[in-house]
Amino acid sequence: MTPSNPIPTSDRSKVKRQPRRGSYDRALIHQILDEALVLHVGFVAQGQPFVIPMGFGRDGDRLYIHGATASRMLQNLQQGIEVCVTATLLDGLVIARSLFHYSMNYRSVVLFGQATMVENEAEKLHALKVLSEHMVPGSWAQARKPKPQEVRATTVLAFPIEEGSAKVRTGDPKDDAADCQLPIWAGQVPLKLTPGTPIPDAQLASDLPIPENLLRYHRGVI
Amino acid sequence: MTPSNPIPTSDRSKVKRQPRRGSYDRALIHQILDEALVLHVGFVAQGQPFVIPMGFGRDGDRLYIHGATASRMLQNLQQGIEVCVTATLLDGLVIARSLFHYSMNYRSVVLFGQATMVENEAEKLHALKVLSEHMVPGSWAQARKPKPQEVRATTVLAFPIEEGSAKVRTGDPKDDAADCQLPIWAGQVPLKLTPGTPIPDAQLASDLPIPENLLRYHRGVI
Repeated sequence: MTPSNPIPTSDRSKVKRQPRRGSYDRALIHQILDEALVLHVGFVAQGQPFVIPMGFGRDGDRLYIHGATASRMLQNLQQGIEVCVTATLLDGLVIARSLFHYSMNYRSVVLFGQATMVENEAEKLHALKVLSEHMVPGSWAQARKPKPQEVRATTVLAFPIEEGSAKVRTGDPKDDAADCQLPIWAGQVPLKLTPGTPIPDAQLASDLPIPENLLRYHRGVI
Repeated sequence: MTPSNPIPTSDRSKVKRQPRRGSYDRALIHQILDEALVLHVGFVAQGQPFVIPMGFGRDGDRLYIHGATASRMLQNLQQGIEVCVTATLLDGLVIARSLFHYSMNYRSVVLFGQATMVENEAEKLHALKVLSEHMVPGSWAQARKPKPQEVRATTVLAFPIEEGSAKVRTGDPKDDAADCQLPIWAGQVPLKLTPGTPIPDAQLASDLPIPENLLRYHRGVI
């Protein structure tokens, strides 16, 4: 099926291996990004690749990225830096009759483009709201808002969702027909990032109840 | 504490932000790698960074990496390719009184070095065993072993654990003292990649029981 609003692709972003698992569907890309908590951000410094996990949030076709090395990345670059950002959700182990067909079910997104520093204070405050609501919906209303000096002390990058792809594997193993008669169990072991019961801070006043949004916390569409 | 057998570091691998969270302890690095199912592998092609999720396994101080783009990465390179590989385990959300101190608990490893193609057939078969046992302990004994043509059809990379670092955040939020009196809940929401009940393949003979290693599947030390 051709998506109605695909994102553009090019040689660098085209899914070359297992192309039937590739997709340029914007809605799917958004959905995967919205479920992920971490991006792996790749950039090059003096010819050396770096891959750093960073928190992020999505606002339409723009990602805001937030992480310890963000300022180091952009230290000497006024014009932005070429990056590749990847989000990966593990959905399960694929147990085949043959080791050759062992696999994993997953949904991933790989995007290419330039990251730029968010300098405007109003946009930065907006980005911090997007970031916190991405991690914990409801957090912006619950917590103390950032003070101007906290906004200034935070490095936020902006990154456009404008080139890249999603890749998805679902379902059963793809064993060779001849192997399907072997007396070997095959199927899937589902995997899910699961929240546990919230643990109060050691210094928390004992009469504060755990907020509903944390008790019912989950990633993705239920 | 200084680890007894640290891995070497250098300017590119030194933890610069939040250095107290950094570690060069080989045992910790091994433990994080052993719990992770996916590496995010970063490499540079024509100046462009790529970050691709790949399955892997560890054999002492060597990683074997296995993924769709492995052969594309090494296509034109006989001598190996400079890569950065990153493994990230998400352990929880850190809910602070102030948005500025919202965070995540995590354990990550970032390694630098050269990936090379495994060409020797005996080492490749060994690597395939390491890879399958990393994903599902017990799988090598249970499944049909790779045929010579399957071994040849698989691209495996070797990568030495010889330079890099781990980074770990644990525990409560670090709110400013003045904020700790606010009537706002704070603490942690634990996160864990959790296996569900195994789902038999649609074509599976109905009398095959689910193997014990899948019923009791888990990542990391219990």
